[in-house]
Amino acid sequence: MIIVLRPNTTDAQIDHVLERIAELGLKPHLSKGEHRTIIGVIGDENKLQAEPLSAIPGVEQVLPILKPFKLASREFFKTDTVVMVGKVRVGGGAMAMIAGPCAVESAEIVNEIAGRVKSAGANILRGGAFKPRTSPYSFQGLGEEGLKILKDAGARHGMPTVTEVMDPRQVPLVDRYADMFQIGARNMQNFDLLKEVGQTKRPVLLKRGMSATVKDMLMSAEYVLAEGNPNLILCERGVRSFEDSTRNMLDMSAVPNVKSMSHLPIIVDPSHATGRPDLIPSMACAAVAAGADGVHVEVHSCPEKALSDGPQALLPKQYADLMERIRKIADVVGKTL
Amino acid sequence: MIIVLRPNTTDAQIDHVLERIAELGLKPHLSKGEHRTIIGVIGDENKLQAEPLSAIPGVEQVLPILKPFKLASREFFKTDTVVMVGKVRVGGGAMAMIAGPCAVESAEIVNEIAGRVKSAGANILRGGAFKPRTSPYSFQGLGEEGLKILKDAGARHGMPTVTEVMDPRQVPLVDRYADMFQIGARNMQNFDLLKEVGQTKRPVLLKRGMSATVKDMLMSAEYVLAEGNPNLILCERGVRSFEDSTRNMLDMSAVPNVKSMSHLPIIVDPSHATGRPDLIPSMACAAVAAGADGVHVEVHSCPEKALSDGPQALLPKQYADLMERIRKIADVVGKTL
Amino acid sequence: MIIVLRPNTTDAQIDHVLERIAELGLKPHLSKGEHRTIIGVIGDENKLQAEPLSAIPGVEQVLPILKPFKLASREFFKTDTVVMVGKVRVGGGAMAMIAGPCAVESAEIVNEIAGRVKSAGANILRGGAFKPRTSPYSFQGLGEEGLKILKDAGARHGMPTVTEVMDPRQVPLVDRYADMFQIGARNMQNFDLLKEVGQTKRPVLLKRGMSATVKDMLMSAEYVLAEGNPNLILCERGVRSFEDSTRNMLDMSAVPNVKSMSHLPIIVDPSHATGRPDLIPSMACAAVAAGADGVHVEVHSCPEKALSDGPQALLPKQYADLMERIRKIADVVGKTL
Amino acid sequence: MIIVLRPNTTDAQIDHVLERIAELGLKPHLSKGEHRTIIGVIGDENKLQAEPLSAIPGVEQVLPILKPFKLASREFFKTDTVVMVGKVRVGGGAMAMIAGPCAVESAEIVNEIAGRVKSAGANILRGGAFKPRTSPYSFQGLGEEGLKILKDAGARHGMPTVTEVMDPRQVPLVDRYADMFQIGARNMQNFDLLKEVGQTKRPVLLKRGMSATVKDMLMSAEYVLAEGNPNLILCERGVRSFEDSTRNMLDMSAVPNVKSMSHLPIIVDPSHATGRPDLIPSMACAAVAAGADGVHVEVHSCPEKALSDGPQALLPKQYADLMERIRKIADVVGKTL
Repeated sequence: MIIVLRPNTTDAQIDHVLERIAELGLKPHLSKGEHRTIIGVIGDENKLQAEPLSAIPGVEQVLPILKPFKLASREFFKTDTVVMVGKVRVGGGAMAMIAGPCAVESAEIVNEIAGRVKSAGANILRGGAFKPRTSPYSFQGLGEEGLKILKDAGARHGMPTVTEVMDPRQVPLVDRYADMFQIGARNMQNFDLLKEVGQTKRPVLLKRGMSATVKDMLMSAEYVLAEGNPNLILCERGVRSFEDSTRNMLDMSAVPNVKSMSHLPIIVDPSHATGRPDLIPSMACAAVAAGADGVHVEVHSCPEKALSDGPQALLPKQYADLMERIRKIADVVGKTL
Repeated sequence: MIIVLRPNTTDAQIDHVLERIAELGLKPHLSKGEHRTIIGVIGDENKLQAEPLSAIPGVEQVLPILKPFKLASREFFKTDTVVMVGKVRVGGGAMAMIAGPCAVESAEIVNEIAGRVKSAGANILRGGAFKPRTSPYSFQGLGEEGLKILKDAGARHGMPTVTEVMDPRQVPLVDRYADMFQIGARNMQNFDLLKEVGQTKRPVLLKRGMSATVKDMLMSAEYVLAEGNPNLILCERGVRSFEDSTRNMLDMSAVPNVKSMSHLPIIVDPSHATGRPDLIPSMACAAVAAGADGVHVEVHSCPEKALSDGPQALLPKQYADLMERIRKIADVVGKTL
Repeated sequence: MIIVLRPNTTDAQIDHVLERIAELGLKPHLSKGEHRTIIGVIGDENKLQAEPLSAIPGVEQVLPILKPFKLASREFFKTDTVVMVGKVRVGGGAMAMIAGPCAVESAEIVNEIAGRVKSAGANILRGGAFKPRTSPYSFQGLGEEGLKILKDAGARHGMPTVTEVMDPRQVPLVDRYADMFQIGARNMQNFDLLKEVGQTKRPVLLKRGMSATVKDMLMSAEYVLAEGNPNLILCERGVRSFEDSTRNMLDMSAVPNVKSMSHLPIIVDPSHATGRPDLIPSMACAAVAAGADGVHVEVHSCPEKALSDGPQALLPKQYADLMERIRKIADVVGKTL
Repeated sequence: MIIVLRPNTTDAQIDHVLERIAELGLKPHLSKGEHRTIIGVIGDENKLQAEPLSAIPGVEQVLPILKPFKLASREFFKTDTVVMVGKVRVGGGAMAMIAGPCAVESAEIVNEIAGRVKSAGANILRGGAFKPRTSPYSFQGLGEEGLKILKDAGARHGMPTVTEVMDPRQVPLVDRYADMFQIGARNMQNFDLLKEVGQTKRPVLLKRGMSATVKDMLMSAEYVLAEGNPNLILCERGVRSFEDSTRNMLDMSAVPNVKSMSHLPIIVDPSHATGRPDLIPSMACAAVAAGADGVHVEVHSCPEKALSDGPQALLPKQYADLMERIRKIADVVGKTL
């Protein structure tokens, strides 16, 4: 960590900063320059990150040198993590092809969609039983009934399932039915929820928050890992921006960016990122070309009657066409579906 | 609601859209223009908002006419809402002057700060017992012990208290100790938490999410109001932006913007918005001039030793100076402290 | 165009709006709903777009139905435009592989880089002679001398050239030396410059502004097209965002998004978008998979001594490796280099 | 400047970095820590800012310590700069009250508005003769005829004038008619234009770009100052954001933020920042409370017939009411109109 002092800092102020560092058992290293005096601090940077050093009189800036996450970092764990979702491998060259309806509406619809996406090549079934809706007047999900329907459809079609959990109190219930927890974008910094799923061994699909930096996302991953659950998959799903012709802005560079900093798998969700079915196939292909460990796509057999996010769903036929294109690109970049 | 059709939509497609609208018991109103055909829909727009109309073939855009919130809207309730926090009136010309440390650290420190801010003119005491921290390795708050300390300090200095609640399971506990719940920015769309505090009658201070529009914030308010709790105060605390010299970007226009759309009181938190003590006083004064119903400021007697957010706290003396300036501006704009 | 009136608008106000529309020779179409009265306007929407209708008392919102650009739109011109840059075709399946140093520094360096990128498969040579630098104290480019060096290097290696023009007064000079004008992100809305290059027949590479929406970019394209120059290529190069680990945020969905709205070719510049050489190759591959009509990459044989943007340049060897991967993906998506 | 090396950097790489620094005539200062080696560099940081140090193998980050602007910085010039616009003082406690129509439309309208705003207390008259319009089909301004009308109206009503200049070729012409050049948001980084106005002695009103940080704005100011023109006033006018209910997001904290870093005056333009007349008065009052050196407001006597930006103009009566409120707040914060 480097502490930059203001011009005209007094010697007494400098001494005070040096004392505070020594109190923490760390070694300060003073360099006086023409315009600024700087203090390098050697030792455990984590001790300092909790300290409000920039509140000390005379301090202009505090510049951290190390990244604030540890268990999630590539420096801590060099090789790519592989997460098992049921019997499906994700990471290290193996891709998660997650597909299904936004919300679980009925056994009939889920089964139909599951059959279609399975035969197109999907390997994990998604569907929401608890739905985070901006409006309290929108469909909020079927709850436990929805969990059952999803589990049955997964079992029938031979696919593990993933479903969103929104409330720490739902964790044991969802744990009984699903093969992977999804933490939605709005809950990426719901720290109590992160701790709760961190105390299970079940895989977690952590979606990036709408205004989260890549480092923020890795800090949230750190919450889960620090509780003892290493089975984490990250998901880029677009961030808020000024662009008004897409629902969010898909930050495609998050894929290689995460991989440079972390060993965790990362997949891409072009459905929520764009909100536009006409843009989903090209963004799914781009994600695979960018090195993503999977793609998450909403599919509905009758989007205009879907109870949630119908307008952003692909039709089963469109999904099957997309999977053919994805297979070819995966082949070029050395991934397996 | 207005439905815009694509150029070259077929008559069969138009008929299909008209049928779907009729199925919902609403009346469509067709206008064929030179370049586009549009359909106006008369009747309860809420019925339509849940429908994925833009997924119907031939539909180019769906333009809502009404705002998606109802109980929070100025159209629903014309006069300014006044919320009682303990015996303190907030709204309708009366201002909440909320001050205190970021986190409750010890009875001694909280009491000292409470005494200082009270004598400067603060009327509500803040302090966090449960802290949402980006890092799992940062101080997470004292929990129930912190709630007790805060309550005692409030009682001793004659101030109602506000403290953050992060988990629906903590609501009953916090309800026993605090006079107002705070929902933090990271939980603005934690809908289960919103429902839980909505089922109490205790006032709620709802902070704007870091990437929430003003309408998103009012939709989250709607969740609380729809559960039956009308005691809600909004808080502008800055949003995420590209500007890197302040912690967030304070959207000052949210104050009159909310007031144009809603009857709810709105206060401003310049501490979290700027993250810089040197900018807090001018932003607090600007907030009052802009018509805010209060100001939320973090104050600490020794910022450099604070366990949370020390660098953005004002010293008690700085707070007292600020309150003198605020009083003069409040006088000009016709507000009372 | 649709005009939404406020609740409680008086009949006199409604009549006044209807009169204003009639004055413009257009036909209003009134629909009174339960909550709102709306007026659909049939006729030439462009006439209305210039009118400040929302300033009329009683008007709540004005919703345009048509896109504000015309010559750039897919509705105006259905098939993909192909632009000839020298003898290189761009668009309609043919890709522009633009490479070269950020700034032209010396004949020797430019020639070396040109030879290397040409043999790797690049087909257009880039290099800046006039540099837009944030700081007045940074290297500002070699000017005319730089233009000569670039032209010579292009001629020697059989590549047409592209270089930035920043000032309308430079247009005739740059026109003498370069095969394509580049309009940089900072000048995307420098309308006098757009008009000036619009009065030539030379191809224009128009880069997206850092806070421009896709529609804003197409409006700027419209300025060039409206002056009579149809030879325009768009370039996505990242926009400003809160993410601080990349220089800009690459909006990959702009590629299919532009293609849905416009017939113009669009390429991607991962160098400026990410600012990080380690992310450039995967983003270049993703761009091709997304359907881009080309890729623009900065290459330097000694990045650590480059006078401008060295840290974001690829080495010639890295570029050659990237081109091999691009070729395979281009093959999958049916593009030719 | 501080250079952070990657873990596992070799000694040969470290030596290479040290050599590069020595070549520039600067002194490196090596500190080896547990996790990272850092190199502090003492001497003229400007020399280093132009160097692509982060492209050197082994370098992880380069952290500048000094701000990149000099003449604009508070460290360079401690006291507040006062700029004379005609006979009107701006800065150092004296406020610029700039008002007038968006565009100059006719002598009659400009004269009427000038008379009204002058009697309300405005001291500088604004009006556009060259208009930067997003669409090539919108009204582009009256050009020289507009400049004459504005000058005459200013002379008749005893107010200096400010008008936008968009093209370096227009500078001599505008210089003959106006008392202050305005550089619009879209041209904040039109460096050739900045240099051109920097070569005159006429005051410059520099508006913040839509995605410019406060430091970017000060770097653009540096361009003008470095050419020899010290008469510069900055203007906060809102930045691009995801909030869709206002035209831009007014970054009110830019006012004290600029004042902490620079000696230059800064004013606020709530008209362009909000785009909503109902929000302008409260934002103008807030700006004055925040310490702004002036307020820039668009006023039109018939907004619904204005040829440009009518919907965001105040009526003369509304402006007069606002000025009464501003006077009271100015009095509280110790400013004079």
